[in-house]
Amino acid sequence: MKKVLMMHGPSHNMFGHRDKNLYGTVTYEEINRKMEETAKELGLELEIFQSNHEGDFIDKVQEAFFQKVDAVIANPGGWTNSSIAVKDALDILTCPRVEVHMSNVFKKHNGTAQAETAKTATGVIIGFGAEAYCLALQAVAAILKD
Amino acid sequence: MKKVLMMHGPSHNMFGHRDKNLYGTVTYEEINRKMEETAKELGLELEIFQSNHEGDFIDKVQEAFFQKVDAVIANPGGWTNSSIAVKDALDILTCPRVEVHMSNVFKKHNGTAQAETAKTATGVIIGFGAEAYCLALQAVAAILKD
Amino acid sequence: MKKVLMMHGPSHNMFGHRDKNLYGTVTYEEINRKMEETAKELGLELEIFQSNHEGDFIDKVQEAFFQKVDAVIANPGGWTNSSIAVKDALDILTCPRVEVHMSNVFKKHNGTAQAETAKTATGVIIGFGAEAYCLALQAVAAILKD
Amino acid sequence: MKKVLMMHGPSHNMFGHRDKNLYGTVTYEEINRKMEETAKELGLELEIFQSNHEGDFIDKVQEAFFQKVDAVIANPGGWTNSSIAVKDALDILTCPRVEVHMSNVFKKHNGTAQAETAKTATGVIIGFGAEAYCLALQAVAAILKD
Amino acid sequence: MKKVLMMHGPSHNMFGHRDKNLYGTVTYEEINRKMEETAKELGLELEIFQSNHEGDFIDKVQEAFFQKVDAVIANPGGWTNSSIAVKDALDILTCPRVEVHMSNVFKKHNGTAQAETAKTATGVIIGFGAEAYCLALQAVAAILKD
Amino acid sequence: MKKVLMMHGPSHNMFGHRDKNLYGTVTYEEINRKMEETAKELGLELEIFQSNHEGDFIDKVQEAFFQKVDAVIANPGGWTNSSIAVKDALDILTCPRVEVHMSNVFKKHNGTAQAETAKTATGVIIGFGAEAYCLALQAVAAILKD
Amino acid sequence: MKKVLMMHGPSHNMFGHRDKNLYGTVTYEEINRKMEETAKELGLELEIFQSNHEGDFIDKVQEAFFQKVDAVIANPGGWTNSSIAVKDALDILTCPRVEVHMSNVFKKHNGTAQAETAKTATGVIIGFGAEAYCLALQAVAAILKD
Amino acid sequence: MKKVLMMHGPSHNMFGHRDKNLYGTVTYEEINRKMEETAKELGLELEIFQSNHEGDFIDKVQEAFFQKVDAVIANPGGWTNSSIAVKDALDILTCPRVEVHMSNVFKKHNGTAQAETAKTATGVIIGFGAEAYCLALQAVAAILKD
Amino acid sequence: MKKVLMMHGPSHNMFGHRDKNLYGTVTYEEINRKMEETAKELGLELEIFQSNHEGDFIDKVQEAFFQKVDAVIANPGGWTNSSIAVKDALDILTCPRVEVHMSNVFKKHNGTAQAETAKTATGVIIGFGAEAYCLALQAVAAILKD
Amino acid sequence: MKKVLMMHGPSHNMFGHRDKNLYGTVTYEEINRKMEETAKELGLELEIFQSNHEGDFIDKVQEAFFQKVDAVIANPGGWTNSSIAVKDALDILTCPRVEVHMSNVFKKHNGTAQAETAKTATGVIIGFGAEAYCLALQAVAAILKD
Amino acid sequence: MKKVLMMHGPSHNMFGHRDKNLYGTVTYEEINRKMEETAKELGLELEIFQSNHEGDFIDKVQEAFFQKVDAVIANPGGWTNSSIAVKDALDILTCPRVEVHMSNVFKKHNGTAQAETAKTATGVIIGFGAEAYCLALQAVAAILKD
Amino acid sequence: MKKVLMMHGPSHNMFGHRDKNLYGTVTYEEINRKMEETAKELGLELEIFQSNHEGDFIDKVQEAFFQKVDAVIANPGGWTNSSIAVKDALDILTCPRVEVHMSNVFKKHNGTAQAETAKTATGVIIGFGAEAYCLALQAVAAILKD
Repeated sequence: MKKVLMMHGPSHNMFGHRDKNLYGTVTYEEINRKMEETAKELGLELEIFQSNHEGDFIDKVQEAFFQKVDAVIANPGGWTNSSIAVKDALDILTCPRVEVHMSNVFKKHNGTAQAETAKTATGVIIGFGAEAYCLALQAVAAILKD
Repeated sequence: MKKVLMMHGPSHNMFGHRDKNLYGTVTYEEINRKMEETAKELGLELEIFQSNHEGDFIDKVQEAFFQKVDAVIANPGGWTNSSIAVKDALDILTCPRVEVHMSNVFKKHNGTAQAETAKTATGVIIGFGAEAYCLALQAVAAILKD
Repeated sequence: MKKVLMMHGPSHNMFGHRDKNLYGTVTYEEINRKMEETAKELGLELEIFQSNHEGDFIDKVQEAFFQKVDAVIANPGGWTNSSIAVKDALDILTCPRVEVHMSNVFKKHNGTAQAETAKTATGVIIGFGAEAYCLALQAVAAILKD
Repeated sequence: MKKVLMMHGPSHNMFGHRDKNLYGTVTYEEINRKMEETAKELGLELEIFQSNHEGDFIDKVQEAFFQKVDAVIANPGGWTNSSIAVKDALDILTCPRVEVHMSNVFKKHNGTAQAETAKTATGVIIGFGAEAYCLALQAVAAILKD
Repeated sequence: MKKVLMMHGPSHNMFGHRDKNLYGTVTYEEINRKMEETAKELGLELEIFQSNHEGDFIDKVQEAFFQKVDAVIANPGGWTNSSIAVKDALDILTCPRVEVHMSNVFKKHNGTAQAETAKTATGVIIGFGAEAYCLALQAVAAILKD
Repeated sequence: MKKVLMMHGPSHNMFGHRDKNLYGTVTYEEINRKMEETAKELGLELEIFQSNHEGDFIDKVQEAFFQKVDAVIANPGGWTNSSIAVKDALDILTCPRVEVHMSNVFKKHNGTAQAETAKTATGVIIGFGAEAYCLALQAVAAILKD
Repeated sequence: MKKVLMMHGPSHNMFGHRDKNLYGTVTYEEINRKMEETAKELGLELEIFQSNHEGDFIDKVQEAFFQKVDAVIANPGGWTNSSIAVKDALDILTCPRVEVHMSNVFKKHNGTAQAETAKTATGVIIGFGAEAYCLALQAVAAILKD
Repeated sequence: MKKVLMMHGPSHNMFGHRDKNLYGTVTYEEINRKMEETAKELGLELEIFQSNHEGDFIDKVQEAFFQKVDAVIANPGGWTNSSIAVKDALDILTCPRVEVHMSNVFKKHNGTAQAETAKTATGVIIGFGAEAYCLALQAVAAILKD
Repeated sequence: MKKVLMMHGPSHNMFGHRDKNLYGTVTYEEINRKMEETAKELGLELEIFQSNHEGDFIDKVQEAFFQKVDAVIANPGGWTNSSIAVKDALDILTCPRVEVHMSNVFKKHNGTAQAETAKTATGVIIGFGAEAYCLALQAVAAILKD
Repeated sequence: MKKVLMMHGPSHNMFGHRDKNLYGTVTYEEINRKMEETAKELGLELEIFQSNHEGDFIDKVQEAFFQKVDAVIANPGGWTNSSIAVKDALDILTCPRVEVHMSNVFKKHNGTAQAETAKTATGVIIGFGAEAYCLALQAVAAILKD
Repeated sequence: MKKVLMMHGPSHNMFGHRDKNLYGTVTYEEINRKMEETAKELGLELEIFQSNHEGDFIDKVQEAFFQKVDAVIANPGGWTNSSIAVKDALDILTCPRVEVHMSNVFKKHNGTAQAETAKTATGVIIGFGAEAYCLALQAVAAILKD
Repeated sequence: MKKVLMMHGPSHNMFGHRDKNLYGTVTYEEINRKMEETAKELGLELEIFQSNHEGDFIDKVQEAFFQKVDAVIANPGGWTNSSIAVKDALDILTCPRVEVHMSNVFKKHNGTAQAETAKTATGVIIGFGAEAYCLALQAVAAILKD
């Protein structure tokens, strides 16, 4: 059974408490529950990780590298563009990697999306609300099948 | 049965003849065949449209608007950023709309993606190669189910 | 009787279906009817043209050039800034030319209006909603009287 | 009878003495005479104001606000873009407001027009030479009729 | 008893008539009344000045310089960034100087505040609505006590 | 008794050791002592927190959110502009929030202040040296009184 | 006999009617006649194509690709910089390709020439007036000889 | 005897009180006395004008225009770059005009000097401290001699 | 014996696993071994520190400040430009400080190197691969000898 | 017989030793030999000049000006954009002047070519490798024939 | 007798042959003759130097430094902004230095003048045509008198 | 014995006479003496070259290329960023090349260093004062040993 690591960025444990116009009313717990259901359907083993600590996030990426995780899904949130340290950490991964952003950043920033961390991702899923996380799992399933 | 319109942009009928480093070796016909299989699995009716003519593309969007298509998937290709006319046309649509870009534009443009047309999309799928088109269908299926 | 050509840009036939905050609820048909009434009052012969096809728009400008139309009113819409081809076509005209933009683009873009096509116009009318088209006819009437 | 206030900006009393390539040979007095004729035809009461003093201009706007003038036409000239104080003053007005610029600023500044003061105007008339002022009156008449 | 000069910028006498989303519903008179109460509590003599005239504002600063006012509080409003003349005048002051902006300009301009006049201020108070003026008086009181 | 949380950013525990031209000779301990005195005078309960760890800072903000602290004063120091993660964390707070910067950043950066974190603050106090922290407490007291 | 395709961009059929300061008085017909003479001298078969329609231009490039034309000369005119769709189409060509611009764009744009379409050309000829087209044929002849 | 008008900008009456590193210790009165001596030596009639009021400055330029002053020397100070109204006023002058800036603005702004008002001046004298004003008179004398 | 602290930034413990085109095949352990040999030859006591945690890195700098380490060598890696918090921490150090970047950033970024942290360093060594760390030790030895 | 001067810029005598991806393997001597053959065929007298010294290059241009050379071909190489002195020298020439750049700079700089020296050239030939020099001679021959 | 060195930049020996709209019809020889007359009147010894060679220009500056010339007047022409080497050389001078530019660069570059070399000059004289050189001598005379 | 060429840029022979805040009081002769001592210790043959003439500098690089010098150390000074000709010359070298800048340019230019010439260097040493030259020799010794 393939192992997938989901990495949530800073304050993502607060979904449901944050700006509802941007993120909807879905909670962090609901997102994770939905992901676990989808993973089960797709026959994937799912580990979920969240941290507000850049260093812990980087340590976890290194651990995933050495444990040879099969795929990583990451929503680096506030670190997406401003943390080169997180980007450098993710760059080391050699397994498939999907980046997820739940809100449509093209709308927020007038047709421009900036994402340092996305540069070395296999693919990026932007918008769709909480659905984006399940699409990422489906993308991982399709890639690992090839 | 829900009807989905896939709109391919200019020169997309040449996939397989174009730069293989950016788009892989998959052909236009293979992409469409794969989409049709996926649509069938998902129980969606799929119409495929391609044009090198901006005006025909816009006319088709207007037709979709009046025929009340259930969802539109579009890869506007070369018009993505430089054709405000295409963007204005797509803006009129009120059904769910997914934008697809087969190559990871964040890598090509150093962490920045520009997409005027993506501003009003429900969501955007970037990278993943030809797989992106099937992920778009899965996204549409999930949205229409809600 | 002086002949005036009104040229509507891409998706303008959709007025009434588009974003009502920007364009009001007036329809394309109502704009044209109002223009025809005003033209009649001003003693002008009015031809109305609309296209979603850049090439047809350019062909029509060339036709107007050779048929020696007395004045051209154009709202190039989505081509205003991004189509140098449309700008180049309009530049050839030697008769008076009025450019119209129905919404106040200075408000939309924080005090800046960009309009490649406006560079060689006789004058530009911005804002006023559907009224702008009739003001353009009045401007044409005043210029042709001189 | 509806009352309209025409506000001329700094050095506008020198029209006729200024760069004839940009402003034509028409004098300040001729512009005003023409406006008065047009106002009479349209059944509007017209007050004409000119000042080189930013503070007097702002005081006059406040006076118009309290006297409930029916419409304001303004050509803020040199203050258009560089005086936030004038812009702030005009923003307070709640009656229809038309901004006029006699020369085609899109041509002068390579397709870009900057006008802080225009952001809250009902509409803007650019180019047409001295004719622009009469078009502004016609615009006001049309708006007040609605 | 220490003397403090409050300098209100252009159109500030219109507070209560201006955009209520940005400035609240508080009126110019209420702000001044509240400042006078606070000044009395703090044992400060308060002179209040307002002008729409840049020149009068500068003259007043020069007068304050020669009369050796103990502190100046200024909200230069529309001149904050666009009037180097006002900035140059304020630069001459050698007494403590507090700049006040009632709305949070960091929110309005996406995390950036521009204020030429603030460069030589002792401190700047941004946001807080009408409360900002009283905080400025408290700041002055604290500085003059040292 | 209302509870206020003061959050000091990275290296702020080193005040007194840092560049004396920018921050004066006041020490971190003196700032805190002065804040405690002022809080006592204003009848506020004050908790003081400092961290060099972005993650600990974010965790603390979340704790404050759940414990329903009455107001937060923050000087995010080096994270002010470069840490979107800290900004996102602070955005979640719904209580009044005052941002403090002890040196006049408008002078340091030629009339421009950049502060991502300040965008959602109730107000910002810039300059005044160590006095700024007490002004923040006074601001909080005034806001909580309303 | 080698076959060369000459592709004229939008409004190029109007040469002779356009701005004579930039393009001289030479007509579209004279340019083509001169090219045909030069082609004959160089032993090249020449096909001449012009369109105002972006889509027709792209279709023609695809046709040339499949018909294995030996070389393409293109002056994409108004599409040179603003049409990524035309650029994408030309990129597919694998035969030698020469881009021509009749006026010296380095003079027009202060030492800078922008040409998206030129990025994948074999070479570019800029300036020289109508002579540029014959130089392009000579360039093609030299390349095909190698 | 030729008549020269010297126009001092806002706060220039404060020279001697302003930043001594930039402007030296020379006072406004000393500058004027020195200019009057130099004018006498050169056989020029000198009128000296200073205002903090933009409007008065513009009025004075118009007066000079109608009184046919032989030359104007101006140091527009804080209006140099930010007041298009002052620039527009000075543009109307047809007599020789010399612009003076007492401090070396190239040093202050890292090799760049910005001066809207200088665009239509006959010449500009920058730096040299108070000596600059006398050099301007010598320049005027030389020009009027030709 | 002089004490030198070597501070490795985030993911530097992964050297040997990272992009071999940029960093060579040398491992983190080899770099440290080589540094220890060089330190021994130069008679310097060497402490080596690495962290993925910004906060730990800052804490360590503060510890070095209080323990009066004789010199610090730092390669802040991903924090070099994006972490003002790390920069602020390093600024407090008063001992000699050498910054090291193993790859030639001038080549990577087209002739431009950006390094906030380098602003207050004694010197910077860029390129040379792993050799750079030993050059830094030699630089430290030379500086401490003076 | 018409006399043409070929001016090679700095390090051009090293062609064949330089980056072979950009300039091919052709040597400086081969370029010159080929030019001499072509010149002979075209009946042109050719003088070839090369210098690494900006001053010698400028002196040579002045000599060409006074000797009334019939045409100049120049590849200013490294001076193309950064030496205004070379540009100023070339501007003085009144004979036809062709600028040559052997590699396609539009590809190197993402669709933008910068060439100060090209602003006053009759035409510019970019790309084509060593062939470009012979095309320049053909261009000169065609121009001198007219 | 004070010794002044006049340094003419590249191609300045061609004045009279260059663009007459920018520099007038005055020749290099006339400028020098006029300067010599003015120097004689002012009791200054004048040495005139011109070079097209940056290195010779720098050597001459060093010579002037060691020979303790009393003042230097320089018009670095094409090197003004693009040669940091010339700027660095001039920076070494400790005697008064006047920079001269004969045409009004503020007009040429839309209100902006760029002059790296001017940053350390005592003063700069811009415009006035050939008269500028004599004004520079008068400036030198005035400075040396103090 | 390995041969190393040291290339000093323009005005570097003036060290000791230049701005002492940036370069210290060390003289050009002292730098060279120190380098010769270090070279002797490292067993390297050292040739020292300095020129104010760009052309001579380029000629010397070409000579070093043909004489197969073992390493080049260069401080191109004022040419570092503005002379593409010097950059192009240095690019031809295939031996190790070290670039030296004696002052910390990251401090001078707010965290940004620009160095066209450094793009193809093996490594760059910035800051450290005169010590930088000896570190460069040590770097060369280490590289040549490998």
